[in-house]
Amino acid sequence: MVPAAGQGERLGQGLPKALVEIGGEPLLCVTLARFESLGLLESAVIVIAPESRSVFRTVLDDAFPGRAFQLVDGGHERQQSVWNGLEALDSSTEVVVIHDAARPFVGHDSIRESIRGAEEVGAATVAIPCVDTILCSDDSGFLEPTPDRSKLWSCQTPQTFRVEVVRAAHRRAAEHNWTATDDATLVRASGGTVKLVEGSRENIKITTPGDLAYAAFLMEHDERFRLKPVSADRP
Amino acid sequence: MVPAAGQGERLGQGLPKALVEIGGEPLLCVTLARFESLGLLESAVIVIAPESRSVFRTVLDDAFPGRAFQLVDGGHERQQSVWNGLEALDSSTEVVVIHDAARPFVGHDSIRESIRGAEEVGAATVAIPCVDTILCSDDSGFLEPTPDRSKLWSCQTPQTFRVEVVRAAHRRAAEHNWTATDDATLVRASGGTVKLVEGSRENIKITTPGDLAYAAFLMEHDERFRLKPVSADRP
Repeated sequence: MVPAAGQGERLGQGLPKALVEIGGEPLLCVTLARFESLGLLESAVIVIAPESRSVFRTVLDDAFPGRAFQLVDGGHERQQSVWNGLEALDSSTEVVVIHDAARPFVGHDSIRESIRGAEEVGAATVAIPCVDTILCSDDSGFLEPTPDRSKLWSCQTPQTFRVEVVRAAHRRAAEHNWTATDDATLVRASGGTVKLVEGSRENIKITTPGDLAYAAFLMEHDERFRLKPVSADRP
Repeated sequence: MVPAAGQGERLGQGLPKALVEIGGEPLLCVTLARFESLGLLESAVIVIAPESRSVFRTVLDDAFPGRAFQLVDGGHERQQSVWNGLEALDSSTEVVVIHDAARPFVGHDSIRESIRGAEEVGAATVAIPCVDTILCSDDSGFLEPTPDRSKLWSCQTPQTFRVEVVRAAHRRAAEHNWTATDDATLVRASGGTVKLVEGSRENIKITTPGDLAYAAFLMEHDERFRLKPVSADRP
């Protein structure tokens, strides 16, 4: 499932964030292509802003002809959007991979490992060890003791779950009015076990114009992310 | 004081990190120029790798002719390098601004506010509210409850201190074998008060080739960071 309902105000292009272009392709399509080679697009659910349904349909039909993605209306917040996506899953789905549309450089290993983690313990999230020092503040803007960086991770996606685990966590969150910016946190708050899977630095979330510049750099310099390999150069 | 002894292996240019070029200028010179217009370069101490002393001297003499920066040999770790820099401060110094050479896009307001904070309470650090969700792990690689993001900050520099405060913290750290990747954490661990000053997103630390691409983007698109403003275009 790909939550793609964000508006992307910080990119300032007047387009849904998932449709902003990187390397000449809509972000969402680059992201989906990362999953295609793993055979994971067959039952993909994409959560979108309702008012953008027709443009999403057009873009996806053009990039993935013949593939009937299920488009689901998102809510006001990501958590509601994910819930809507969970409700729309085919009843035979056992494991759901939730991945941000705005992370086009996810590694295949990260996807595979997160699925394995969910199969083993019910839930897994991709994350990378914090490089920055993370400081804690009190309510008055003064420093609290600094946490041990070796136990801190910067959250990425995919987050992958056995469907009943993440559905139960979302229901519990709704009952208790818990909100979180990711789904693994809800599972943990509900008492579930979540395995951490180490991702990669390149798996950034595109948020600002500077991130687009970084994305262009990666697509140009890292052959894993090149859209059209120059095969003519090879013998 | 500018710790600039890092080797910058991840940039892969075979140069001390502080001398890698951005926008055609050595990183360190771009960073120092941010402080020049505030009149803060008069008594600057730059901590360098001892084996690179002559190249640093040449580069600095070229970029800032007539200004006699004090170059101090760094140690194996940043903490030791900062201590060496603190030992080298002129005895009349009351407040020391410590700023990473690799953060060329620091805002003038951040510098000013950190100095004000240090004058008020003895210590201040620039930091920005965490955008990423920060997850916590246990020792076995499973998720612990997620901390409240609203109290988490990503550490930047400058960190600014009354000299006796940061010296005492470093002495205490040496006694107790505390290590930290920043100096404000040492002051807090010693029981000191540290004010948080909100910095800016642009104040990144240049670490990877992707960061250099981001830096080039900023210098091209953000007039605050342009090295040569095109004044001819203005009436």
